[in-house]
Amino acid sequence: MLCKKHTKRFYMAKNITKKSENYSQWYNDIVLNADLAETSAVRGCMVIKPYGYAIWERLQAELDKMFKKTGHMNAYFPLFIPKSFFSKEATHVDGFAKECAIVTHYRLKNSDNGIVVDENAKLEEELIVRPTSETIIWDTYKKWIQSYRDLPILVNQWANVVRWEMRTRLFLRTAEFLWQEGHTAHETKKEAINETELILDIYADFLQKFMAIPVIKGRKTESERFAGAIDTYCVEALMQDGKALQAGTSHFLGQNFSKAFDVKFSNREGKLEYVWSTSWGVSTRLMGALIMTHSDDQGLVLPPKLAPYQVVIVPIYKGKEEFDEIDSFCTQVLNDLQTKGIRVKYDNRDSYKPGWKFNEYEVKGVPIRLSIGKRDIEKDSMEVFRRDTFEKKNYKREKLIESVLFMLEEMQTNLFNRSNLFLQENTFEVNDFEEFKNKIEKGGFVLAHWDGTEETEREIKKLTKATIRCIPFSEEEKGKCIISGRLSERKVFFAKAY
Amino acid sequence: MLCKKHTKRFYMAKNITKKSENYSQWYNDIVLNADLAETSAVRGCMVIKPYGYAIWERLQAELDKMFKKTGHMNAYFPLFIPKSFFSKEATHVDGFAKECAIVTHYRLKNSDNGIVVDENAKLEEELIVRPTSETIIWDTYKKWIQSYRDLPILVNQWANVVRWEMRTRLFLRTAEFLWQEGHTAHETKKEAINETELILDIYADFLQKFMAIPVIKGRKTESERFAGAIDTYCVEALMQDGKALQAGTSHFLGQNFSKAFDVKFSNREGKLEYVWSTSWGVSTRLMGALIMTHSDDQGLVLPPKLAPYQVVIVPIYKGKEEFDEIDSFCTQVLNDLQTKGIRVKYDNRDSYKPGWKFNEYEVKGVPIRLSIGKRDIEKDSMEVFRRDTFEKKNYKREKLIESVLFMLEEMQTNLFNRSNLFLQENTFEVNDFEEFKNKIEKGGFVLAHWDGTEETEREIKKLTKATIRCIPFSEEEKGKCIISGRLSERKVFFAKAY
Repeated sequence: MLCKKHTKRFYMAKNITKKSENYSQWYNDIVLNADLAETSAVRGCMVIKPYGYAIWERLQAELDKMFKKTGHMNAYFPLFIPKSFFSKEATHVDGFAKECAIVTHYRLKNSDNGIVVDENAKLEEELIVRPTSETIIWDTYKKWIQSYRDLPILVNQWANVVRWEMRTRLFLRTAEFLWQEGHTAHETKKEAINETELILDIYADFLQKFMAIPVIKGRKTESERFAGAIDTYCVEALMQDGKALQAGTSHFLGQNFSKAFDVKFSNREGKLEYVWSTSWGVSTRLMGALIMTHSDDQGLVLPPKLAPYQVVIVPIYKGKEEFDEIDSFCTQVLNDLQTKGIRVKYDNRDSYKPGWKFNEYEVKGVPIRLSIGKRDIEKDSMEVFRRDTFEKKNYKREKLIESVLFMLEEMQTNLFNRSNLFLQENTFEVNDFEEFKNKIEKGGFVLAHWDGTEETEREIKKLTKATIRCIPFSEEEKGKCIISGRLSERKVFFAKAY
Repeated sequence: MLCKKHTKRFYMAKNITKKSENYSQWYNDIVLNADLAETSAVRGCMVIKPYGYAIWERLQAELDKMFKKTGHMNAYFPLFIPKSFFSKEATHVDGFAKECAIVTHYRLKNSDNGIVVDENAKLEEELIVRPTSETIIWDTYKKWIQSYRDLPILVNQWANVVRWEMRTRLFLRTAEFLWQEGHTAHETKKEAINETELILDIYADFLQKFMAIPVIKGRKTESERFAGAIDTYCVEALMQDGKALQAGTSHFLGQNFSKAFDVKFSNREGKLEYVWSTSWGVSTRLMGALIMTHSDDQGLVLPPKLAPYQVVIVPIYKGKEEFDEIDSFCTQVLNDLQTKGIRVKYDNRDSYKPGWKFNEYEVKGVPIRLSIGKRDIEKDSMEVFRRDTFEKKNYKREKLIESVLFMLEEMQTNLFNRSNLFLQENTFEVNDFEEFKNKIEKGGFVLAHWDGTEETEREIKKLTKATIRCIPFSEEEKGKCIISGRLSERKVFFAKAY
């Protein structure tokens, strides 16, 4: 084993600001120090680094399985959308036109001033880099749908999108981001609403079971609705600073896009009817939620189900001779664990010292670290370190696999329970505006009566910065609006939000 | 079983032009009828339909495994590249500037003429939609690399890219396409060349083992080299019309990009040195190769290893009652096969007749079709149809799994052997220009001596439309150039190409 002094020296992640000192800086420090992402030379666009991308790939893989299990297939639609398509759905264009990347030319040329845009190569119609794909997809579905036999269409796309945000933050808000967007077409209104609900449940399940993030579910108010939707359902999570984060949305689009793109089908009675539709998505923003929900002052903390490596093996040795003595033991442990389907990294690099590696994998949130030295092998045991609780314990090799499997499960549960407790402790029901302001100020979800008007919604936002995160699907429970005193049908969730 | 008359009627894929009549139309017909892709409203951009995309996903999954097994990780870099980055590598900008999509503005606005570009929202520097990512990636690597300890960097990206092609064909040449691009950084020239070779071997292996496509390997001539590379290695395949298709390229970039972006590292002797690099890629063009190599006049033929469904089960029945009788048997067969890891679709839709389904899955190239009716169940057997040979045979249920597994392997081998035989029979060695013209005219690879000059290369292209596909890695074998009569070091592969 590494001597105490040695571990201590490297124990503190020096480059990470304390969460309690500056939450926003703490978040950024973790993203950078855990090697997840960084800003690029292109304003607002990030680089997702290999380790960060590996987490995104885990996330994608699990979510994709859930989509496919429920009958969805992936497809791919063009990156560019003709400008005129936007105008076809009036609300839609208002929502996206103000922040989009516009392609106007298709050739550069050499000139005395260096490389310049060739003005002879101007597009007849400008192309918008997709901020979302409803319009190009519904233009395509028009060709796919004639009869009820062609329905439902259950299609998803994993893609990059661009929204020209002015103030960006890694993962949380970037000009380009990665996401999945589902676009489905149905015979009936009921079927489309069922789909909207099904997807919301998938999102909630995924967040809870894989990301270990509890969520509240509900529908958005009109002002927070997706541009072009009849109804937007959402899952909202609570970050450690008490701010809410919208984690996923599922939209019931009614017949808005089928009417805009004139997509009719002949129904079972042989009559022509407009198609019903939904769209839904989650993005690399989920990475932000994952980081902010579980991490601590030592760095990233990852739920085992989404960790690229669930276990890292660090060999402890001095000199090549000693390394050779322990290498085969370490390799066997690696193989044993991999055989059980555990994702393991054996870091046998000689260019870094064990203390450096200890720090590295703590900052990167690897759930379990095994350190193996010569004396451990003599005792046929090893030290096992657990990232969420910082517990260290020696295990006999014969007990190792069983213990690791158990610990991974326990850690997944523990992280969920921890964040769930945090959510409960920071969700408040209030009945008057003073209490409301007080709670909102401290952070968390605040359940309060609202009169249902946009005017009141705006007023509350102006006074407290809080927005209505969602209207829960709960039973009606009449009361009085905390501001206007007018009748309210149910309490709704307020919070300050990302 | 379905009566003979019934099967016959649907047997011919009516919408597919015969390959012998019009090869190019045949290809298009297959892409459309097998539901793989279609053109979109955006010039040159295609829509990859769910079934086509499912094949691409299979392809991605297998290739990605091979990359990861050899130590590569995925990452994601910005879609946009600042115009000035292009100018940094002189050859590079020449290669890509003439066909790129240029973003100049970031906002639309309402006007009397409808939605227009907001001239107040002009970018200070234009952004190019990536045609390839060397420049943005090397600008990023500059931050990642200080010491030899940071090397190698073995990174791959799955992404969309845009090259403003004027004449496009589905999968083979489109303005936007999907691909993977590897970008690696190394301490030494030797290591970078090894990487270039390793990747070429991975591409060749993948094409042969998964796509059942034999390839020839070699290096490109200077004129066909990647813009910015020292050396371009490639794998070339031969399509059924005798034209070659470049299936993948692996570039040794030397220090070109590290010099252009000033990326130095301190080496093991503590001296600053420019980093050595490679890049490599395959694209959705592989889909074109897959389609053209194996398909026939009945539609698509897929190697089992890449087929989204390896087996389809079609129930044969009249009326709901009969369906209920056979449904559980079919479901059991489905489960039995799935348990063995076979990808199976059970098409129990009532809205389509069995004959329609037979045709559908033949056109879509599903390797094996099982048809199961009431009488089959009585005999505890079923009809098994094999797509590559059109063989039909009855199998007892107890023999089914074993037979299917065997058949899938045999089919994979058969497809490779078939295309390999075709490659051999259509590769010719010639010693004079008359014979050369004659063979090139008929199609296939032609091995001939070339004097190594660009002038001769151009002359041959002008006279015959043939280009040098690659210079094989074979031993030197001196001879005389078929055109100039000058000294040649070895024979090179010529062909007309896609």
